[in-house]
Amino acid sequence: MEFPSKLIEDAVNEISKLPGIGKKTALRLVLHLVKQNKTKTAMLTEALSKMRENIQFCKTCHNISDDEECSICKSHRRDKGLLCVVEESKDVMAIENTSQFIGVYHVLGGIISPMNGIGPSDLKIDSLVDRIARAQGEVKEIILALSPTMEGDTTAFYINRRLQQYSVKVTTIARGVSVGGDLEYTDEITLGRSITGRTLFG
Amino acid sequence: MEFPSKLIEDAVNEISKLPGIGKKTALRLVLHLVKQNKTKTAMLTEALSKMRENIQFCKTCHNISDDEECSICKSHRRDKGLLCVVEESKDVMAIENTSQFIGVYHVLGGIISPMNGIGPSDLKIDSLVDRIARAQGEVKEIILALSPTMEGDTTAFYINRRLQQYSVKVTTIARGVSVGGDLEYTDEITLGRSITGRTLFG
Repeated sequence: MEFPSKLIEDAVNEISKLPGIGKKTALRLVLHLVKQNKTKTAMLTEALSKMRENIQFCKTCHNISDDEECSICKSHRRDKGLLCVVEESKDVMAIENTSQFIGVYHVLGGIISPMNGIGPSDLKIDSLVDRIARAQGEVKEIILALSPTMEGDTTAFYINRRLQQYSVKVTTIARGVSVGGDLEYTDEITLGRSITGRTLFG
Repeated sequence: MEFPSKLIEDAVNEISKLPGIGKKTALRLVLHLVKQNKTKTAMLTEALSKMRENIQFCKTCHNISDDEECSICKSHRRDKGLLCVVEESKDVMAIENTSQFIGVYHVLGGIISPMNGIGPSDLKIDSLVDRIARAQGEVKEIILALSPTMEGDTTAFYINRRLQQYSVKVTTIARGVSVGGDLEYTDEITLGRSITGRTLFG
């Protein structure tokens, strides 16, 4: 693609580095900004700079936070005895949106994946074990809410083994057919698990 | 959507103001920036700020430019007697990519559209007429490369009337079936025009 201006070209190249945004979309966004008032671009770049410069990670649960400790860890309404382990901050947001969970979180920052060169030491697993040790039996249950994949199962298995020395119940989120889904179109592994993992009706 | 941080929320709100980007995509982009090194965000915001602050419009053709006069108007290789009128800078880029045009451009900055409150005075039409008048017969042909819509036709009609006092040939780009297209799936108006506007074979 030929650009009428070096400035436009640089901006397009930077934007198209973002995931899922190609050169054509980047150009559309840049030309949109050119058509708008200068203050619109200033507001956008300021919000991004400020966010990236000042964003922190909660010292307890490693979730994205504006302060040293996140609002969930700080809250007195949350049950500190119930701890949900997730891969990323976006999983915390997804679970919070369900309004079904009253405990606190622990964000691993990823998942064990030998294919991508990510081992247990790259994740916040030591920090999780420390947290349980320091709580001295205060944490009653750990819910593993990891991806239903091979990597997720490996990570869950590893965490469970590391936690065996502590008297804490380790559970995982239920796997089964999705609500509103059709039995006919559910894959056989999920359907099989939903039968072995059946629960009492009512 | 609930955000774990005000900084994230502000950044998501700003990004989702861009056309075709919703809150979910904006969040994905912001979380991507958080995962990356701080310099990546700095490079992105700097490229955008620099672009918006320093971008200019060519004083002759109103195309996007790094300088007072754009590289196409400055070039001695371009035929100044052939002038192509387009709506936006992105149309210039599209035509340049064909490598089929050796003339110069005139960017209107939009199209006459009473529905959106855009009249002839909001566009660079006076500037086009001035340009033709000042050229004193040097411009031999004006090609109208406007959208094949009602608004495009209105704009073409208006420009043609304004230019009647000057001895300049006004043409429009050909309308017909697209190359590689299928006659069966071409709409009847386009197919009809392709028959009335038929050209000699070979």
